[in-house]
Amino acid sequence: MKVAIAGLGLMGGSLALALVQSGHDVLGWNHRSAPYEQARKNGITCVKTVEELALARPDILILCTPLKAMDTVLGKIKLVLDEHTTLTDVGSVKREVLSSVEKHGLRPLFVGAHPMAGNELAGFEAADAHLYDSATWAITVEEDTDKERVITVGRMITEGVGNRFIVTTAQEHDRAAAQISHMPHVVATTLAAQLVVNPASNIALALAAGSWRDMTRVALTTPERTQAMVEENPDNVADLLRDQAARMTAVADLLAAGDADGLAAFFATAEPYRTVRARLQQGIPEGVYSILLDESWRERLLSASRRGGRVEYIDSVEAHARDFAHLREA
Amino acid sequence: MKVAIAGLGLMGGSLALALVQSGHDVLGWNHRSAPYEQARKNGITCVKTVEELALARPDILILCTPLKAMDTVLGKIKLVLDEHTTLTDVGSVKREVLSSVEKHGLRPLFVGAHPMAGNELAGFEAADAHLYDSATWAITVEEDTDKERVITVGRMITEGVGNRFIVTTAQEHDRAAAQISHMPHVVATTLAAQLVVNPASNIALALAAGSWRDMTRVALTTPERTQAMVEENPDNVADLLRDQAARMTAVADLLAAGDADGLAAFFATAEPYRTVRARLQQGIPEGVYSILLDESWRERLLSASRRGGRVEYIDSVEAHARDFAHLREA
Repeated sequence: MKVAIAGLGLMGGSLALALVQSGHDVLGWNHRSAPYEQARKNGITCVKTVEELALARPDILILCTPLKAMDTVLGKIKLVLDEHTTLTDVGSVKREVLSSVEKHGLRPLFVGAHPMAGNELAGFEAADAHLYDSATWAITVEEDTDKERVITVGRMITEGVGNRFIVTTAQEHDRAAAQISHMPHVVATTLAAQLVVNPASNIALALAAGSWRDMTRVALTTPERTQAMVEENPDNVADLLRDQAARMTAVADLLAAGDADGLAAFFATAEPYRTVRARLQQGIPEGVYSILLDESWRERLLSASRRGGRVEYIDSVEAHARDFAHLREA
Repeated sequence: MKVAIAGLGLMGGSLALALVQSGHDVLGWNHRSAPYEQARKNGITCVKTVEELALARPDILILCTPLKAMDTVLGKIKLVLDEHTTLTDVGSVKREVLSSVEKHGLRPLFVGAHPMAGNELAGFEAADAHLYDSATWAITVEEDTDKERVITVGRMITEGVGNRFIVTTAQEHDRAAAQISHMPHVVATTLAAQLVVNPASNIALALAAGSWRDMTRVALTTPERTQAMVEENPDNVADLLRDQAARMTAVADLLAAGDADGLAAFFATAEPYRTVRARLQQGIPEGVYSILLDESWRERLLSASRRGGRVEYIDSVEAHARDFAHLREA
């Protein structure tokens, strides 16, 4: 597979290194040429302009720049991108990328993707062929998404990087990402901010154990990075924060009323989560099953993912998935 | 030092094992005798009733039962406790224990204590001499607390278990504990509960990475245990939950208004916390200093703790403390 990577930072650089290691032909471009010497030593063919990446007619072109730079890159490559090439990205918010892709008339070539990988570092110097090890990706498909292009992206993920993926829509993805990542980053920050204003904050800090450190770890992320993350998904994050605030106020009311039964009911609501976490800790369940990629391929893949299925291999006929522990039947 | 431990569960059992290992004479009592065989093998002298513990005239008697059982135990030992014995406890909430101690007329013998140690397990079978390794304790002192008894408890912590301690009041402790432990347990549960009701919860679960797992880990604690914890400190937990709710609503409003400057100001409020965490990661600062235990011993110890000091050794003349990174000057 000939893979072109636009943006050789932590995510793009690590992906390029992993794909080179699994024997793929990898082209790279970066807005600054600083990483080129190191990238070339690692077997990545570097080109001077992003147009050159597109003109190389890769099987797949992966946008790995910051989200804010993707629109500019799309504006440049749209003039030269061949329809042989499948366009994808690794952005952490999918609706924004999709609307930018649509604006530039590239929607027919596009399949969204988001790998659940990363760390607090940045730049090609932090890139690591193992950054994606054991990662699960989300592939986002809309009603007009092309099946063959989904298969191309799916093979890059499974055969190229050795990862698994789920299939979802941009909208469903962004809501889910807000819930398990973007909104919790704000919550970690409100916890830390509340400690800072406590007159006895040094006492509290001395008493803080692992639970507090774990819950506030992501408050240590660069503030600009967290702000950019929530600003890219503002409506979902705001909705979920208001819902969290309502839940916390309800618990405060139960405590004020001394309502033991109400508190027991509150703590019971998280029971299915405890069960699924315990199951996930027991390891990956057995049993691979096949999902037929006929004319209902999109519904079949979406529905399998909503049930807890993750695809481990895909070809032009079927996807091979494994069910992980799940919170609800779907 | 002759130490009596009432309650040989995870906390009391581990404390007993650690004190035996450092050469102390340890007596133990438990409401059920199930752990006695194992405890005796480990050098703990087990007695049949809690009155026998008190009658043994230990230097220190440590309440290690669940908080709810302490009142009953105090009611029994008050009839036989000699004033030679210093009474303390390891309860996670201090005002409730203090008022129970007061009710039974034992306040002159009492010094509160709370070790920052523990795990998700329970019972003597989970006890471990290393559970307290590197733990910081809080010793709580009120205006009428006896200095010599504080020294006795301080020596049990530093020489007996090899730990450090801070000195605070029951009220200040309970507020701080609510902030860094009890309230965050509720927040972890509201996060988990919100995920459970999401129709696409399996999608969200598939996307969840380390940050989500870390932030919801304490939601996996036995619900009854978390409920008991917050019910023992209801006013502080409710106050802090309402404050969290207000902070989250304010961020939701900023997102809805697209107020980038306001969001930047919000993320900046946690900056002192990022700084102190970075300093704490760099290790323990140098420099031990002495705190004179004259007639102002209480104010001196409280004030050192509020500045970030932790006591590493204490004798009848002075305490030797080390300053840890702190959030604010006090």
